[in-house]
Amino acid sequence: MPQALIIGAGDGLSASLARRLAREGYEVALAARNTAKLAALAAETGAATHACGAADAAQVGALFAAAGEAEVVVYNPSYRTRGPVAELEPEEVQKSLQVCAFGAFLALREAARRMLPRGQGTILLTGASAGVKGYPQSAAFAMGKFALRGLAQSAARELHPKGVHVAHVVIDGGIRSARRPETGEDTLLDPDAIAETYWQLIRQPRSAWSWEIELRPWMERF
Amino acid sequence: MPQALIIGAGDGLSASLARRLAREGYEVALAARNTAKLAALAAETGAATHACGAADAAQVGALFAAAGEAEVVVYNPSYRTRGPVAELEPEEVQKSLQVCAFGAFLALREAARRMLPRGQGTILLTGASAGVKGYPQSAAFAMGKFALRGLAQSAARELHPKGVHVAHVVIDGGIRSARRPETGEDTLLDPDAIAETYWQLIRQPRSAWSWEIELRPWMERF
Amino acid sequence: MPQALIIGAGDGLSASLARRLAREGYEVALAARNTAKLAALAAETGAATHACGAADAAQVGALFAAAGEAEVVVYNPSYRTRGPVAELEPEEVQKSLQVCAFGAFLALREAARRMLPRGQGTILLTGASAGVKGYPQSAAFAMGKFALRGLAQSAARELHPKGVHVAHVVIDGGIRSARRPETGEDTLLDPDAIAETYWQLIRQPRSAWSWEIELRPWMERF
Amino acid sequence: MPQALIIGAGDGLSASLARRLAREGYEVALAARNTAKLAALAAETGAATHACGAADAAQVGALFAAAGEAEVVVYNPSYRTRGPVAELEPEEVQKSLQVCAFGAFLALREAARRMLPRGQGTILLTGASAGVKGYPQSAAFAMGKFALRGLAQSAARELHPKGVHVAHVVIDGGIRSARRPETGEDTLLDPDAIAETYWQLIRQPRSAWSWEIELRPWMERF
Repeated sequence: MPQALIIGAGDGLSASLARRLAREGYEVALAARNTAKLAALAAETGAATHACGAADAAQVGALFAAAGEAEVVVYNPSYRTRGPVAELEPEEVQKSLQVCAFGAFLALREAARRMLPRGQGTILLTGASAGVKGYPQSAAFAMGKFALRGLAQSAARELHPKGVHVAHVVIDGGIRSARRPETGEDTLLDPDAIAETYWQLIRQPRSAWSWEIELRPWMERF
Repeated sequence: MPQALIIGAGDGLSASLARRLAREGYEVALAARNTAKLAALAAETGAATHACGAADAAQVGALFAAAGEAEVVVYNPSYRTRGPVAELEPEEVQKSLQVCAFGAFLALREAARRMLPRGQGTILLTGASAGVKGYPQSAAFAMGKFALRGLAQSAARELHPKGVHVAHVVIDGGIRSARRPETGEDTLLDPDAIAETYWQLIRQPRSAWSWEIELRPWMERF
Repeated sequence: MPQALIIGAGDGLSASLARRLAREGYEVALAARNTAKLAALAAETGAATHACGAADAAQVGALFAAAGEAEVVVYNPSYRTRGPVAELEPEEVQKSLQVCAFGAFLALREAARRMLPRGQGTILLTGASAGVKGYPQSAAFAMGKFALRGLAQSAARELHPKGVHVAHVVIDGGIRSARRPETGEDTLLDPDAIAETYWQLIRQPRSAWSWEIELRPWMERF
Repeated sequence: MPQALIIGAGDGLSASLARRLAREGYEVALAARNTAKLAALAAETGAATHACGAADAAQVGALFAAAGEAEVVVYNPSYRTRGPVAELEPEEVQKSLQVCAFGAFLALREAARRMLPRGQGTILLTGASAGVKGYPQSAAFAMGKFALRGLAQSAARELHPKGVHVAHVVIDGGIRSARRPETGEDTLLDPDAIAETYWQLIRQPRSAWSWEIELRPWMERF
């Protein structure tokens, strides 16, 4: 039974991914700082849960030691803060760099170490439009998400010829959730639709791989 | 029965697309300058064939008058020439602009005119890495494929909020075919794999649309 | 006395360039479809004038035969049209492709043929933000300006290692002129300021060349 | 007498900048972790020197308290490491993020706080091609330089309409220095040529600002 590991589980996207992968026959592991909130999803999907601070090298090492045979690894954690660049707290910038980018590096490194000897595997990194375009009042988030994209592009160029597929998904828009219900006509991204694209990336044969794809609601300006 | 129109039919990608769409229940129409070469594919997929010069406004108008209720329109024609920019024949540049870009505009315009009143439809434009990066010795092809990408991006921004999905697929690598067989390990794009990505773009729900995706073999440098 | 050739002369930018280059000691030649409007500028700068349709290969050939020893060649012509992509006239798209891009190819080709044997020279192509981002209601202009950028990038990669400097200047905003006077605080690009940047590109030593630069007013959104 | 502050002083580029700005009449301040190596340059240019760890918020705060009325602030520090992403030490990634990006944020924040009330000033950030393209074997450097570019783009969009000019200079190639002398024909960037471009950015009138420019030797592949 193939294994999948979803880091940063808890929100709508991770739940949709967990259900989609479970439905495709994967044994799913979910990692989050606080696993209490994962109980219902774990029960529904049969997933194991792991407590893990995503930007802590030792904890990420332990996570992969426990759940590391995964053929599919997804990194979702993000930290967004807004405000004038002249008034940003340095701690906020650090947190964005650590959660959006450094944690992704830790996960990618551990995943690559295990996938490279097998010559296969898929690593999916959840990005944002802020990683492609630096918006005003959003310097900290831009820094974290640009860094994530740099990691993804560098790793894709390095690992693809070794059989490991790395892809960066640019989410451009809000994601529908219980806390943020759809109030119009598909103005928010349906997390099941995002999960479907992740699944199609996982399914891509190596003769036709993508390293990046953007997803946004039809009404979203870009 | 939904209809699909593939312009620039004949090569490996168009054949794979025709088979994939026929398998999904589409009534397929194939358009090419020379329809003789389409006979076998038409017989196999039940597709209708249309003779059409892709860069001729009147012929493209007639094509859509005959086959224009298509919910899916794919534009594949391309004209590639190489050589030092100082020695390029102006006719070669014109041909690249006309075949890669102007013909795509004609098809997109006709398709949009019919899709906008219905508030739905998918238009897929086949691009190349030359549309994203201008390579040396390739000025003519760069001009045609950059222009195509400009069309695709402008049309996506304009038509998405009206319900019509436009996507540009960047093919980065050679495509496997009878004339160009695979001699290594997935060093050429499998046209069935490309067609699968086109199909997934067609299936995307409007809450999570892509306007562009790149596809390349795992070994391809980028 | 070094020579410079400015194609598409007449508007504010070309006049500023002609004055700047004349001031730096260049013998300036101005080319435009209609030379009558160039009389005052020619008198002021001592420039020669040439009638030339920029997208006509024979006329461009004749222009360079007459004025082709230029060490600096600037291509400015542009054709902008707006409107819904479904309603654009094919002739408008053709005109954008021909004026924005094909004419630039003709000029660049003639310039390169004369500069390559000398192993030096500068070719400057005037682009627009529409060449970097495809805006809605602007498909024709996007096609022409994207194609121009593809030409510029391909030619820069090809010609730089041969000693010929190619640069693409992205003008993002309106240019101040007699017909379009400044009404706020530097909300329009000063053509003298643009000309200064062109001059600095010409002056760049080959150890530190730029192939592209963007210019926009401080208040312009991007 | 206008003031300029150069952070990360010591190498060839900073020395060229210090000389250029001193020549233009600026009172120059140089900041580096180790000021001993700045003595000769300080003597030559009359510059003040400040010891400062660029990624330490308190030290950067103290630096600007001492030298912060600068109208021009340049951030040069960089930390480059290479190697397979699966074997990178987490400390190396942290160092790249801290030195390339977080320190730039600290400097930009302090500079912006002082420039915004005056409604003018120039902040120049030294980037690399690694900030635009993620190369294989270079994930850590890509992360730091992509993050820097995200900061620059976000800050440019935010601060330009407030009168503060932010620009990101993409250095694509090696820089000539005593340790790395030119052995061919302009195959390395001349630091004086880079400094000239920085000076031209400082001089740009606000009607025609650039937020980014690339510089590379004519022979450099890109």
